Amino acid sequence: MVAVNLMSSPGSGKTTLLERTVRDLGGQLPIGVLEGDQETRLDAERINATGVPAVQINTGAGCHLDADMVDAGLRALAPEPGALVFVENVGNLVCPALFDLGERARVVIMSVTEGADKPLKYPHMFRTADLMLVNKVDLLPYVDFDVARCVSYARRARSDVPVIEISATRGDGLENWYSWLHELRAAPSR
Amino acid sequence: MVAVNLMSSPGSGKTTLLERTVRDLGGQLPIGVLEGDQETRLDAERINATGVPAVQINTGAGCHLDADMVDAGLRALAPEPGALVFVENVGNLVCPALFDLGERARVVIMSVTEGADKPLKYPHMFRTADLMLVNKVDLLPYVDFDVARCVSYARRARSDVPVIEISATRGDGLENWYSWLHELRAAPSR
Repeated sequence: MVAVNLMSSPGSGKTTLLERTVRDLGGQLPIGVLEGDQETRLDAERINATGVPAVQINTGAGCHLDADMVDAGLRALAPEPGALVFVENVGNLVCPALFDLGERARVVIMSVTEGADKPLKYPHMFRTADLMLVNKVDLLPYVDFDVARCVSYARRARSDVPVIEISATRGDGLENWYSWLHELRAAPSR
Repeated sequence: MVAVNLMSSPGSGKTTLLERTVRDLGGQLPIGVLEGDQETRLDAERINATGVPAVQINTGAGCHLDADMVDAGLRALAPEPGALVFVENVGNLVCPALFDLGERARVVIMSVTEGADKPLKYPHMFRTADLMLVNKVDLLPYVDFDVARCVSYARRARSDVPVIEISATRGDGLENWYSWLHELRAAPSR
């Protein structure tokens, strides 16, 4: 199993990206999803609607997933050997950065509707990220967001972090995201 | 002194709204700002550039402001009697909801680039909000966001919460926000 911990602010597009990703890759490899939120089963229902198994984890007042929650979620999900499992963390650029969920890789999503200075203000999240996705590039014409500046700020936290620009709604860059996932899955575990 | 605790996800436009608000109201009444972030002094510098005093509070790994931090910040800010003091919390829809800073009012900002379901997923934040601002309405033509649905979800958490739609960049609705602030300041403290 290869687990990917997906983290971002609320509303950066994690669930929309996952809906599209599991639709596009679900025929090629076994996939499962753990969905973290304070309350509701909305996100697991969105993933289940694609035909891919998803388990919702509710944290109540909690601000992040922890390894025990993921362990319990994986028992319920029971992914096939070799499966790609996405763990969508609680929407929060702060607390999830500090918790190791046993994931193979940590992915942080920035949306271009947020400020480019976020990697400076929330450095813990960007310091541990194995990939930064810059989402909602379809909105770039309408907002004041400098992608190059945001990337340079993220690389102050982690100098070699790869960056992929995407639009989860329009489809831009998704082939690069899928290639990254295939390479991650093919790579020997660390 | 009347303190307003401003809370939202990262990138919902808190600082941009404050820059505009203190520019527009700074000639009419004494104003001060406390700026909370994990790291950097960027936001206090943006407010200081308007001529209004601002003090930066850095929380390090912390995910919210607490009353002790605000107390220390107020000693440094030293606002005039009767001043309106904005406390910009760490960008986070989760943790700041649980901490009383001694504020007169709690304001939550949603941006239309986030999902309308956020009040359901992060109910603690919306349960204690005295006002919800729906920001970035200038982007409504380009995103899939149902304002009425978002408002109805927020009112499941707090049935009587007032809502003001604004665009901090284009100026929509700011007169309503300023009226709300003037009324808050004129009202007897609870």
